[in-house]
Amino acid sequence: MGTEFLKIKEVKEANDIMKKLFNKLYSPKSEEVAIENSYKKVLFQDVKSSINLPPFNRSLKDGFALKSKDTFEATEENPKMLKCIDTVEAGSFSNKTVKQGECIEISTGATIPDGADAIAMVEFCEKENDEVLILKSVPPKQDIAVKGSDIEKNKLLLKKRTILSPDKIGVLSAQGIEKIAIFKSPKISVISTGNELLKENDEMKYGKIYDVNTNAIKNAIISCGGNGVAKGIVKDSYGEVKSAIQQSLKTSDIVICSGGTSAGVGDVLRHVLDDIGEVIIHGISVKPGKPTIIGKIDEKLIVGLPGNPVSALIIFYVFIAPNIRRLAGLNEIEKSKIVTATLSKRLHSSKGRMQYSLVKLEDHLAIPIIKDSGAITSLADADGYVKIPKSVELIDKGEKVKVNLFNDY
Amino acid sequence: MGTEFLKIKEVKEANDIMKKLFNKLYSPKSEEVAIENSYKKVLFQDVKSSINLPPFNRSLKDGFALKSKDTFEATEENPKMLKCIDTVEAGSFSNKTVKQGECIEISTGATIPDGADAIAMVEFCEKENDEVLILKSVPPKQDIAVKGSDIEKNKLLLKKRTILSPDKIGVLSAQGIEKIAIFKSPKISVISTGNELLKENDEMKYGKIYDVNTNAIKNAIISCGGNGVAKGIVKDSYGEVKSAIQQSLKTSDIVICSGGTSAGVGDVLRHVLDDIGEVIIHGISVKPGKPTIIGKIDEKLIVGLPGNPVSALIIFYVFIAPNIRRLAGLNEIEKSKIVTATLSKRLHSSKGRMQYSLVKLEDHLAIPIIKDSGAITSLADADGYVKIPKSVELIDKGEKVKVNLFNDY
Repeated sequence: MGTEFLKIKEVKEANDIMKKLFNKLYSPKSEEVAIENSYKKVLFQDVKSSINLPPFNRSLKDGFALKSKDTFEATEENPKMLKCIDTVEAGSFSNKTVKQGECIEISTGATIPDGADAIAMVEFCEKENDEVLILKSVPPKQDIAVKGSDIEKNKLLLKKRTILSPDKIGVLSAQGIEKIAIFKSPKISVISTGNELLKENDEMKYGKIYDVNTNAIKNAIISCGGNGVAKGIVKDSYGEVKSAIQQSLKTSDIVICSGGTSAGVGDVLRHVLDDIGEVIIHGISVKPGKPTIIGKIDEKLIVGLPGNPVSALIIFYVFIAPNIRRLAGLNEIEKSKIVTATLSKRLHSSKGRMQYSLVKLEDHLAIPIIKDSGAITSLADADGYVKIPKSVELIDKGEKVKVNLFNDY
Repeated sequence: MGTEFLKIKEVKEANDIMKKLFNKLYSPKSEEVAIENSYKKVLFQDVKSSINLPPFNRSLKDGFALKSKDTFEATEENPKMLKCIDTVEAGSFSNKTVKQGECIEISTGATIPDGADAIAMVEFCEKENDEVLILKSVPPKQDIAVKGSDIEKNKLLLKKRTILSPDKIGVLSAQGIEKIAIFKSPKISVISTGNELLKENDEMKYGKIYDVNTNAIKNAIISCGGNGVAKGIVKDSYGEVKSAIQQSLKTSDIVICSGGTSAGVGDVLRHVLDDIGEVIIHGISVKPGKPTIIGKIDEKLIVGLPGNPVSALIIFYVFIAPNIRRLAGLNEIEKSKIVTATLSKRLHSSKGRMQYSLVKLEDHLAIPIIKDSGAITSLADADGYVKIPKSVELIDKGEKVKVNLFNDY
């Protein structure tokens, strides 16, 4: 009942618990989306071809469909003459059959008429009325894309977890598919707690500050494939926090709270979880973000992030984001978001805790940002953060560090 | 009148013409967006702070606000006793003034009471009723974030062209800003032309194929910051193409057509441009994509891409995308989209034209995709393309090549 002591968790332990918890409580879900609007969505299943491509024997060139034998030995000096018996445009077909000594004028993309086994490009032909001079011999199958040669019906086209870039969207469109099953983004409510918080456009009052975490966390959720829903600000009281969480649980898979003060909200959320749910983690051996709370209510995950925006964002990225990414069908860590840089000056770490330090990148240098832990401008300047393991007291100037980027546009 | 001969342009020349044309016809425009929904939007102007941060002298810790002088020489063995005259929580303030020998209990984030110049952390204090034992001396300003110390009012907060990641969104939220000016995405209509084209879900008929380019190009536009609008399929006729372009011009900044056959649609679009606009480029010395047309009508850009989806996408990425990105406030080329890899086998190029060859990436190897130029599955397999300059006839196995990626999730 709120008094039980939970041992502070080390980073690896906390990460393992989080991963197990996510896997126990959630499994990836799918939803349908129109191909047209599927940019950057993630395929939920393998997609097989439902038709042959091309769907028919198709001309790759403008020219004349003919029997290749009729062109053998044709040269500019000794052209072969054929009788043009029809014309076929892309999108239509000819009812006639090409016989020896005949040809049919054909456009790129049109169906190959019966009897023809090759195309002579228009550049090597001369047409006058219904007579065509062929100036160059063509081998069988010349400039014909055979039905199913691109892909046969029922073959694997795109694999599950393919991220739909414009080219892959084109591949799906070629099959005439209108909608496709993609990973559904988990719906995650974001609640900011604190008596000191004002919402945007509220008049500034002495002692108050504008809420940062609702928008920052909501968009951090979006950045890792989740569907973040802003639930606004609630007062730092048991009743309001409990009620906001219960309301959010009705429509969300996960609820993420962040609180004004470590003592205050940590305690409130802790009490709510003790009463109507379960506390799983209270405290992680990290800096910043030690007072993080993880719990569950009705088999749904409840996260309590610190109120300090820098701490809240870092804890979100380190412990929550990889799990949301997995649910959304993405790799837990995005490789392109980690870059190597050289530390521009010595970075001290706090003893006994994993530390996450903000840095700015400039010409392959990682420049530590040394400000109050609550400074919002540190976020304005930062490009990402560097992890300093518990056992490391300092990283010296000139050492290579890995920077986890906040942005990867 | 459609008969004028336009010299085929080299790649550099075509790129220069495109850039000048874009700069002449368009300038970046802004629109307002709610901060909440501003993920990955691009700031249209510098943003200055409109308030001090913190807006007041703010406590960084839970503890007691006091006169630092009162704590000098305090130790665990010789604690100093102060009288606690009030309590102040985050979001509120005390009307009392701290005098010598007094203190006020304070929460993290609360306003520093008048008279106090430091905070003694709760961990080094013992409170009983209204008496507080201070176990450790604190220097002046200890654990106080001074008003404006994070950022002063009217200072530069974020620069024009900042891409709004969750942390930067937090920075704007801290100022209580609700809406912000961002680069407005240019609106670009996409028209697919061809008698052979079916729209998704249409019943397959002999000689027809499903339209690929509408969805592929629309989403390629989105991928570079534009607002792609699908206008669907039109027949390969002068009247339909002209009418579709005129309709699209009413609501769009740019119109991008792609056509079924090089001869057919190239000619139709060429005639429309000759009649009601102007042809600027007809033919670029590249493979694929030679029959590309660039023109303008009513001071708006009209692009005619090849009908072949591979050609259409590559021409779009090479000649159109950098200009759309610039209009959208982004860098012309996204550095993270170009990676270096080792060619897995010899790649031949066509003489006299810049060639773009599709490759697949596997373990730092770039594997050329050798298929018919129209093969849709080449897009399913491809991760990007390699440029082979006009003067290069082949690139040997084992050479390093730069791969332009189709995707960068």
